[in-house]
Amino acid sequence: MSEQSYEPNMVLSTKEFDVVGKRPLRHDGVDKVTGRAIYGADVSMAGLMHGAVLRSPHAHARIKSIDTSKAEAHPEVRAVVTSTDFVDPGDKTVDLGEGLTRLAYIRNNVLARDKVLYRGHAVAAVAAASLHDALEALELIEVEYDLLPPVLTAPDAMKEDAPLLHENLRMMEFGRPTDKVSNVSDHFRHEKGDIEQGFAEADLIVEREFDTSTVHQGYIEPHNTTALWNNDDRIHIWTSTQGPFTIRDTTAAILDKPVSQVRVTPTEIGGGFGGKIPVYIDPVAALLSKKSGHPVKIVMSRAEVLEGTGPTPGSHLKIKMGVKSDGTMMAAQAWLAYEAGAYPGAMVVPGGMCVFAAYDIPNVTIDGYDVVVNKPSTAAYRAPGATNAAFATESVVNEIAEKLGIDPLDLRLKNASKEGTRRADGPKFPRIGCVEVIEAMKNHPHYSAPLDGPNRGRGVAIGFWFNAGLPSACNIAVNPDGTITLVEGSPDIGGTRTSVAMQAAEVLGLPAEKVSPSVVDTDSVGFTAVTGGSRVTFSTGLAAIEAARDVRDQMIRRAARIWGVEEDGVDFEKGVFHLKNGTENRMTFSELAEQIATTGDPIVGRAGVNPPGVGGSFSGNIADVEVDPETGKVTILRFTAFQDAGKAIHPSYVEGQMQGGSVQGIGWALNEEYFMNAEGKMMNSSLLDYRMPTSLDLPMIDTVIIEVANPGHPFGARGVGEANIVPPPAALANAINNAVDVAMNRLPMNPVAVMEAIWGKNGATD
Amino acid sequence: MSEQSYEPNMVLSTKEFDVVGKRPLRHDGVDKVTGRAIYGADVSMAGLMHGAVLRSPHAHARIKSIDTSKAEAHPEVRAVVTSTDFVDPGDKTVDLGEGLTRLAYIRNNVLARDKVLYRGHAVAAVAAASLHDALEALELIEVEYDLLPPVLTAPDAMKEDAPLLHENLRMMEFGRPTDKVSNVSDHFRHEKGDIEQGFAEADLIVEREFDTSTVHQGYIEPHNTTALWNNDDRIHIWTSTQGPFTIRDTTAAILDKPVSQVRVTPTEIGGGFGGKIPVYIDPVAALLSKKSGHPVKIVMSRAEVLEGTGPTPGSHLKIKMGVKSDGTMMAAQAWLAYEAGAYPGAMVVPGGMCVFAAYDIPNVTIDGYDVVVNKPSTAAYRAPGATNAAFATESVVNEIAEKLGIDPLDLRLKNASKEGTRRADGPKFPRIGCVEVIEAMKNHPHYSAPLDGPNRGRGVAIGFWFNAGLPSACNIAVNPDGTITLVEGSPDIGGTRTSVAMQAAEVLGLPAEKVSPSVVDTDSVGFTAVTGGSRVTFSTGLAAIEAARDVRDQMIRRAARIWGVEEDGVDFEKGVFHLKNGTENRMTFSELAEQIATTGDPIVGRAGVNPPGVGGSFSGNIADVEVDPETGKVTILRFTAFQDAGKAIHPSYVEGQMQGGSVQGIGWALNEEYFMNAEGKMMNSSLLDYRMPTSLDLPMIDTVIIEVANPGHPFGARGVGEANIVPPPAALANAINNAVDVAMNRLPMNPVAVMEAIWGKNGATD
Repeated sequence: MSEQSYEPNMVLSTKEFDVVGKRPLRHDGVDKVTGRAIYGADVSMAGLMHGAVLRSPHAHARIKSIDTSKAEAHPEVRAVVTSTDFVDPGDKTVDLGEGLTRLAYIRNNVLARDKVLYRGHAVAAVAAASLHDALEALELIEVEYDLLPPVLTAPDAMKEDAPLLHENLRMMEFGRPTDKVSNVSDHFRHEKGDIEQGFAEADLIVEREFDTSTVHQGYIEPHNTTALWNNDDRIHIWTSTQGPFTIRDTTAAILDKPVSQVRVTPTEIGGGFGGKIPVYIDPVAALLSKKSGHPVKIVMSRAEVLEGTGPTPGSHLKIKMGVKSDGTMMAAQAWLAYEAGAYPGAMVVPGGMCVFAAYDIPNVTIDGYDVVVNKPSTAAYRAPGATNAAFATESVVNEIAEKLGIDPLDLRLKNASKEGTRRADGPKFPRIGCVEVIEAMKNHPHYSAPLDGPNRGRGVAIGFWFNAGLPSACNIAVNPDGTITLVEGSPDIGGTRTSVAMQAAEVLGLPAEKVSPSVVDTDSVGFTAVTGGSRVTFSTGLAAIEAARDVRDQMIRRAARIWGVEEDGVDFEKGVFHLKNGTENRMTFSELAEQIATTGDPIVGRAGVNPPGVGGSFSGNIADVEVDPETGKVTILRFTAFQDAGKAIHPSYVEGQMQGGSVQGIGWALNEEYFMNAEGKMMNSSLLDYRMPTSLDLPMIDTVIIEVANPGHPFGARGVGEANIVPPPAALANAINNAVDVAMNRLPMNPVAVMEAIWGKNGATD
Repeated sequence: MSEQSYEPNMVLSTKEFDVVGKRPLRHDGVDKVTGRAIYGADVSMAGLMHGAVLRSPHAHARIKSIDTSKAEAHPEVRAVVTSTDFVDPGDKTVDLGEGLTRLAYIRNNVLARDKVLYRGHAVAAVAAASLHDALEALELIEVEYDLLPPVLTAPDAMKEDAPLLHENLRMMEFGRPTDKVSNVSDHFRHEKGDIEQGFAEADLIVEREFDTSTVHQGYIEPHNTTALWNNDDRIHIWTSTQGPFTIRDTTAAILDKPVSQVRVTPTEIGGGFGGKIPVYIDPVAALLSKKSGHPVKIVMSRAEVLEGTGPTPGSHLKIKMGVKSDGTMMAAQAWLAYEAGAYPGAMVVPGGMCVFAAYDIPNVTIDGYDVVVNKPSTAAYRAPGATNAAFATESVVNEIAEKLGIDPLDLRLKNASKEGTRRADGPKFPRIGCVEVIEAMKNHPHYSAPLDGPNRGRGVAIGFWFNAGLPSACNIAVNPDGTITLVEGSPDIGGTRTSVAMQAAEVLGLPAEKVSPSVVDTDSVGFTAVTGGSRVTFSTGLAAIEAARDVRDQMIRRAARIWGVEEDGVDFEKGVFHLKNGTENRMTFSELAEQIATTGDPIVGRAGVNPPGVGGSFSGNIADVEVDPETGKVTILRFTAFQDAGKAIHPSYVEGQMQGGSVQGIGWALNEEYFMNAEGKMMNSSLLDYRMPTSLDLPMIDTVIIEVANPGHPFGARGVGEANIVPPPAALANAINNAVDVAMNRLPMNPVAVMEAIWGKNGATD
């Protein structure tokens, strides 16, 4: 590939389709750019009351008493709720797609019961005729606290004498409950081969420790909800969520109602990235509605979003890798401690699945620790857990390459996972694109472009995300004008109305514009899991494919009836029905659609899928930086993102995902962090102070889509939302290292961190 | 049947089911009684503008000019539209379920083009920031008219020298176009046997003429619509309608757009009875939205509803029947002239289908005339056309009974239509309940109860409506709590959410409460024809049954997989899956539903149906009245309504339909009429002056449901919405006749009419 053939956005395609792989306009584009789209804060209805939430000013305290009487006496207040308004869930557990969770944890996070466990923890809520009245009434609620010492990092929380967040939290170890009361909720271990033997056979061993800060997903739209608890005990919730069915199921569990009594309408969503999966204010608004008899809306402020919802874990990581002098990886060991936040979490689990997934290493041990600390209960964030892990692993891999004098991409290629490689956590890879991604990076002109000037460096890193399948459902109906309507249950965050519609269009030989996709509510479509796990285009896409096939088969039967032949006498190809026997009879989809009303039943298709053939996605970055040695400021000169999409259903949206994930990874790498004081107060809880990258901070993010078809999907799609956030911190650390020769061991690598590293190096004796 | 066994509401059941035939609470009941239900006038959204319509003050005039410049200059006006804003449809015809109609007629009725054809005819519309501004702006629109003489009744309009409404309307005769330019748009004839021969063989011939006035459906909620013409040229309409797909298709045709560019959300509906099928303000609001860039809402006033929408036709009818002296009907002849209103109509067609349908008569001729007059374009009204016809036929039949000295029910029984009877318009009856209805009337204690006191009388009459099938679609999804959600496209006017849900529940062995039915929009369900023709419980019910069977079959497969047996090894009965081989394995629907998520794909069912097995419904009334000979006031002493429901899916709603239809028939019989002055102005265009019966005017309407199962439906349902309005006018005419010995020949039989009849009798020479 010569410099001449280079394009800022490239697709390395393997297979062409009629609709899939093209770039039609998104169906919701006009609504989004004109402001017509209805977001949660736009929801309004007769008698609407406004809710507000009282939050703990302390990071760790026992609640002695809550006196709401003055607030209740406020003339404009219609309802006040505290945790005691919830049914006590006892030991009940719920499975909301991430394994069993104690319902009490979710409930207590929604409204604190005996203790507050982080600053911002919700304690009570009021509903009033106006938001101003509601906020005024919050100040009338008197809460007495017994302050407790907070613990803010995993290493601190793991100390024997650390203050305990939960006096009865017994550690799980290796999948079994123990008697140990601890801030460690879970310690798991994955083992493969013989780790001692592996290190013994290695010629070079590199071992390093890393820290990463708590960061937030940074979605622009704050959490919001409007709930109506109707007189028939049915609850309708309009909310910005990645998972309307998850909100339904969680809210129903907390309120101790059957799921069918809760109906959730997902409004348009202004970003989520994993942070809009958990429930926060929905059951609160529902209770306020029940007590007041009015619909109640709650919209969080930015500070509430940052302090009261789930960021992604900070972590402390130790990585030890041993290689032969030719670069062959012999052994790898990881020790991962992730901050769960206030309640036991799950993000270290995917961290453990991804930490060495890119490499075929015979001897591996991975220890993972889930550690509660006095910070908000963590949530998923785009390939949750994987970015922390890759920052560590990829930094070590680059150091090995440097020490062995091997090109870092060659080192990766030599050890790259491929079909049949078994991960330490168990699964054996199906066809994957790890090698192809690394090869594309190596062949890309960026990798060989000159890097002129002082304090400039280039770094590379790769990343992996396994992607999810999970259930999705879809209904399709045929219109007489030859179009179809498509109902799906996946909130559209990244253009999935279109990527799903395109797959139905491909099956039916229609242009994408002839599909009208709708995201409705939990009462109007079959169960559909969250928009997350990079699963919508894959799994809801499969549901659309199956529903379209259901339609196609009925239309073949209809054509056969019209032509007076047996069903198997009719073929369908590229949108045209024709007789197999070669006579002239043919009808386009539109021509047959026009005849449906006069020739029989309306044609509607349906499918529910829970697909097994999930294909993980590999990604890679090449990053060029210039470091200002006086200030520590890192300027990104050039950045190219690579990712295996399997098949890019809509390449523009794949590119958008790659660019968005890269930028989020860059923010995480260079700037973002929860800056906590010693009392556990976040000191930067606004978007002015919590510094996410803007377009002025960034170069254009160039993209290269690699297509290694996923055999588990008819068009080869893998899912692309997440793997792209994984490599940027490591790639930038490596670029900084390459520029100014410092090994960066913590995130963010902001000017302070970079200067400290430079000073550390200059002050070092060797 | 003794007086002791009498109950005010009786069901003569033939077959029992688990859910069908029971009386569960309606799913939308709480929303309706608490005011939560969203009706069209409740719709609101950001930037909403209010539309108002300028209407013609003249019944017949040519429009010389419309000057909207002053209205456009009004500072609060955002848009003004007139007919010229519509694309000229030329000769295009549309089929909206009642055969082909010229699109130009619909378009010109929505906004008049060259002529206004009735007082209240829409001429122009404006959208402004407030309704007050919009109404103010209407007064700034200057319309110049050339007045033309109006013609207001069918007999007048059929005269050779009558003013012509449409200079180019060429009469259809016997299904073929003629060259005759006329106010008669259509003359059809049904013939059976030899009418001359039939009358020749008769011993008694009775011939009478009848007139019926124009009446309105009288729904409480006025027409309303909110339209948003989006920047992507997609149009979303929220409206109170019986047929969201009909509104979609008609609006799309008028606006010259593909149907898929129009999305219609049917709001809750406060009555329709046929009057909320046509399009009036939806395309107007859409155009105002396009011009203004805002969503636009229009809500009609009561006067606009009465003067600007479609009432049901007034008519002039001649009936001639010949019988043997033993009562055997030998010949029947009908001459039916129905007022179409301003544009060619269709209501005389069902009049012709129903006029003699209750009787097996060997020789029949039926002539039908559709006649345009300077009144609002007519619309359907509950068994449209049949009530006019039955008033005439049943009055003649009663006169025959009286003249022959035969009990009027015996006369009817002797000649009653039954399975195999061929109607004069062609179809042969399948299994019907005509005989059973008459027998139930005869056996009912009301029929033999004493009628003490002067000026009291008893009348009977029967009626028929053929009912409709037409397409419906349904989707069902299974929840883990053992409930199902059901999506249908039929707006719920009379409790059909529940009657449809019950049928799905019956198939799946669930209580009705475990079904959550939703009526959504035209983008979220397959094509579903109007809520009308008594078809929803039958046809949408069948769609629900088929979708439930689709679910059941998938659940049987799932159970088989869980048990590790072949699919045909599992049976399903009364909500329980069990192994056919008699082992202990069994799972309830709920138990299996709970396992769906962990054992495979989500389960969703679907169906589209266009069912052939429609079963017509017969009805009958026994009415007791007392006539005040001084004032002509008719007091109803007792009223019993009989109807063959096939199977009453939800008997309470069947009873409600029977009571509602009876009351509407009573209003039509005794009070209601469009009282027009000579210039064609309705003089009673408010509900104070347009006198519908209130509860104070009526006795309790007792009901007897007869169940003669319809073989075309799994539970035997026929559809019950309409046949009940057919007999009341004739039954009351006969009761008045019985009370004070006057033959009533016109509707309404208000005090003036009754006194004129009494005076006419007293002034007669014989």
